Amino acid sequence: MADHKWTGCVKSLKGVILDMCGVLYDSGEGGGVPISGSIEAVKRLKESDLQLRFCTNETQATREKFVAKLQRMGFELSVSEVFSPAPAAVSILKQRGLRPHLLVHDDVVSEFDSVDKTSPNCVVIGDAADKFSYKNLNDAFQVLIGLEKPVLFSLGRGRYYKETDGLKLDVGVYMKALEYASDVEAEVVGKPSAMFFQSVLDDMGIQPHEALMIGDDLVNDVGGAQQCGMKGLQVRTGKYR
Amino acid sequence: MADHKWTGCVKSLKGVILDMCGVLYDSGEGGGVPISGSIEAVKRLKESDLQLRFCTNETQATREKFVAKLQRMGFELSVSEVFSPAPAAVSILKQRGLRPHLLVHDDVVSEFDSVDKTSPNCVVIGDAADKFSYKNLNDAFQVLIGLEKPVLFSLGRGRYYKETDGLKLDVGVYMKALEYASDVEAEVVGKPSAMFFQSVLDDMGIQPHEALMIGDDLVNDVGGAQQCGMKGLQVRTGKYR
Repeated sequence: MADHKWTGCVKSLKGVILDMCGVLYDSGEGGGVPISGSIEAVKRLKESDLQLRFCTNETQATREKFVAKLQRMGFELSVSEVFSPAPAAVSILKQRGLRPHLLVHDDVVSEFDSVDKTSPNCVVIGDAADKFSYKNLNDAFQVLIGLEKPVLFSLGRGRYYKETDGLKLDVGVYMKALEYASDVEAEVVGKPSAMFFQSVLDDMGIQPHEALMIGDDLVNDVGGAQQCGMKGLQVRTGKYR
Repeated sequence: MADHKWTGCVKSLKGVILDMCGVLYDSGEGGGVPISGSIEAVKRLKESDLQLRFCTNETQATREKFVAKLQRMGFELSVSEVFSPAPAAVSILKQRGLRPHLLVHDDVVSEFDSVDKTSPNCVVIGDAADKFSYKNLNDAFQVLIGLEKPVLFSLGRGRYYKETDGLKLDVGVYMKALEYASDVEAEVVGKPSAMFFQSVLDDMGIQPHEALMIGDDLVNDVGGAQQCGMKGLQVRTGKYR
């Protein structure tokens, strides 16, 4: 982007949306470590006139536990500022009267406590990590293939993310696996879904062109934001290679 | 296909290729069970003037053990009549000087005994079933993403197969997963690869239009055969739904 364009962008800017994993911290054993300078950057944004929200596809913990972890690392943020896929999925399921078979991380199951899960008529997958066993993926497949109209929700569509001990497969990989097995197209909840970004803009009460999304993922953060009319900026931390 | 076309087909027919799982037997606990009438059908084909070969994407056992299992069920067949992906992959790896990281069933590992597997420069996946853990898939991904030019071989590209206790995810599902994660297109060894079918035709010394492929998979058996110029026939056993 040429300099004069950035000047225009900065002038109209009213809000910033920050990706979290790979921008604020690198995940890994023990919860991960903050990325150098990021605690200070969040502090400065909070002191500015800009509105600030956090937008994550994190689905390995409830939003409450996840925010508590970042607070312990030293970040200033609260649960109401953080947008994550599981709560968004819960409201979609309730709106459409769907009962999910869950293939999600143990630590995020409780986000779905208020949802009826008897005789499932859809599948929800999140970043289940070690729970992505052959048996569990096969169980999810058998639910899908047994439905007249298979419905699959994926909490994000990321390929991989960086942990302190290396790159790890993300939920999008298993979404593709189930799509192929069951001949169905997944509905993505979370980044880069336009509906997900719009809910963040609505919460700030600003227009897309007044918002800047900052992330380490060219497709899900930057591309997703640009498709909504926001500005997108890729940092060279996290999964950037 | 209209009747007069079948008459023409039967007149020129010199060889039959039989898929195995879902046509001869249903797999499952204890090795599986023969499909009613199939032992007799193989016997009659052997007594006819037609040449007969067996073509399987089975990669849960060495060809020797697999053939022994079918012989115990009562089928008349020998190892030299059976074409399976692992031996085909071994010759491709040797031709191209590739050293595989294997993600295959324990019982098929020995097919690759003669191949150098030090510092891998490609990945080979087969129907690893329970070995398709998150850790093992992540290990294969890390090999691919670490290569300048990722090379992925998939022993077949099936979606699922039928075992006696239900449908099971096949290797193609994990091929799609790794393709998406690593942004690479897999090279398929086995059905429906044209090179694989051609090797069977070469062995019989006949032309494609003189051969009939019989299978339960519309894409891998029937479609693959038709793309090579053979006739394809789908049986209503196995995974047929």
